Amino acid sequence: MATDYWPRSLLILALDTATDRGSLALMEEDRLLGEYLLAAPGSFLQHLLPGLETLLQDTGRRLEDVGAIAVSQGPGNFTGLRLGLATAKGLAWSLRVPLVAVPTLEVLAAQCALQPRPVAVIIDAKRREVYLGRFLGAEAEPRALEPPVRLPLAELPGRLTPPLLLTGPALDTYEDFLEDFLRDKLHPDIRLAPPEARHPRAATLARLARQRLQAGQTVSPSQLVPLYLRPAL
Amino acid sequence: MATDYWPRSLLILALDTATDRGSLALMEEDRLLGEYLLAAPGSFLQHLLPGLETLLQDTGRRLEDVGAIAVSQGPGNFTGLRLGLATAKGLAWSLRVPLVAVPTLEVLAAQCALQPRPVAVIIDAKRREVYLGRFLGAEAEPRALEPPVRLPLAELPGRLTPPLLLTGPALDTYEDFLEDFLRDKLHPDIRLAPPEARHPRAATLARLARQRLQAGQTVSPSQLVPLYLRPAL
Repeated sequence: MATDYWPRSLLILALDTATDRGSLALMEEDRLLGEYLLAAPGSFLQHLLPGLETLLQDTGRRLEDVGAIAVSQGPGNFTGLRLGLATAKGLAWSLRVPLVAVPTLEVLAAQCALQPRPVAVIIDAKRREVYLGRFLGAEAEPRALEPPVRLPLAELPGRLTPPLLLTGPALDTYEDFLEDFLRDKLHPDIRLAPPEARHPRAATLARLARQRLQAGQTVSPSQLVPLYLRPAL
Repeated sequence: MATDYWPRSLLILALDTATDRGSLALMEEDRLLGEYLLAAPGSFLQHLLPGLETLLQDTGRRLEDVGAIAVSQGPGNFTGLRLGLATAKGLAWSLRVPLVAVPTLEVLAAQCALQPRPVAVIIDAKRREVYLGRFLGAEAEPRALEPPVRLPLAELPGRLTPPLLLTGPALDTYEDFLEDFLRDKLHPDIRLAPPEARHPRAATLARLARQRLQAGQTVSPSQLVPLYLRPAL
C-alpha cells in the first residue's frame, strides 16, 4: 500500500460492522466531521453505502477526498465483519489509499479511556459464548493486559475481578445474566459503562486508526482477514 | 405536559443543535438504536428533518412510536439552539409527549464520566469568550461544582486548576491558544478529552433525559427557552 501517501489534511473514512450496531464516521485530522450509528442487524448492506453517500454530501466532502480507510477487524458478527471488510477493501483499493484495521475490542476499550479501573470488554460470540478483552484504562489509548479470548458466558464472572469497568455490546445481550451476577456478588467496584459507550463508534475507530497510520501500520487489502479467537484454555 | 404518559417501551428522540456539531438519536429504554452526528454549521435546517426521517426508517420505528422528546438547552450557538428548541417543541406538542431539556455543558461532562478528575467543559461563546462549566466526574451522572459562567478566553487558564479533564467543542475552536497555555504551564495532570468525546452526542442527551423523565422533570413547550449565561464576575 501507498503508506507514503499523506495528503495535507487527512480525511479518514471509518467503518465498523463487527456487532449489531453498525457505524460510519468521517474524521479530518483530529476533527470529527460526521458519524452515523445504527442498530440494524442483518441489514447493513441496505444501509451502509446510502449512509456513506449521505455522510459525504452532508459534510461537503467527496469520496475522492478520502485519504485513508479504517475498518473494525473483529471479533464479532461473522456476516457483518465480512461485509465491512469487503467494503473497506473495495474502497481502499479503488481509491488507492491506505487501509488500517483496528481490533474491535480495542475500539470499545478506548471509549472508556482516562478512568483508573482496568476495562473488560465483552462482545457476543453466539451460543452463550463471549469474546473478552482486558485493557489498562488509564490512558486515551488502551493497552491490552493479555490476549483476548473466547469463552462460555458461564465462565465470564470468574474473570471479572474488581476493580473493573465492564463494557461492550454483550452487556445488553446478556443483561439479565450479568445483573444477577453483579447483584449476587455485590461488587461495589465493578462499574458498567454508560449505554451509549457500549457499542463501537466509528469515530473512536478513526482516532485509533490515525495513530496506526502515522506509525505506518497499514494492511494490504488482499491480505486482511477478520480477527477470530480460539476458545480459552 | 402529560408526565403520567409512560409507554411500555419508552422510545426517546433526542436532538442537539447547541454547537457546530448537530446530533440526533433514538434510544429505546437504555438501548441506543441509532444516532447521527454532523458538522454542518449553518445548515442544520436542511439536514435535521431528513436525518430524522432516515433514522426512523433505518431503525424500523415510526414518528408515532416516539414517547418523549429530549433537547439540548444550551448555552451555545444562538441560531442553532433556537432551531433545535423550536423543532423539539413542535414535535412534543404535535405528538403529545413529554419534553425534557438538558443543559449542554452537562451532556458534555457526562461523556467523560467515571474518571476521577473534575471535568471542565468549554463551549465557544463567540468574540473570544467561552462558556465554562465545572463538574465532578467520578460518577456516570456529572454533578456541577458551581453554576456555569461566560468569560473571556484570556481568563480561562486561571480557572483551569489541575487535576482536570478538559473537554468541549471549544477545545477545537481555540486549539492554538489552549496548546500554548498547556505547553507553557506543563501541567501533567490536565488531560484533554479524546476528539470524539468533545462534541455533544444526542445519545448521551437521551440517557440524561431518561433519568429526568423518570423523576418527572419535564418542561412545557410554551415555556422552554435556551439557557443563556451572564458574564462571570
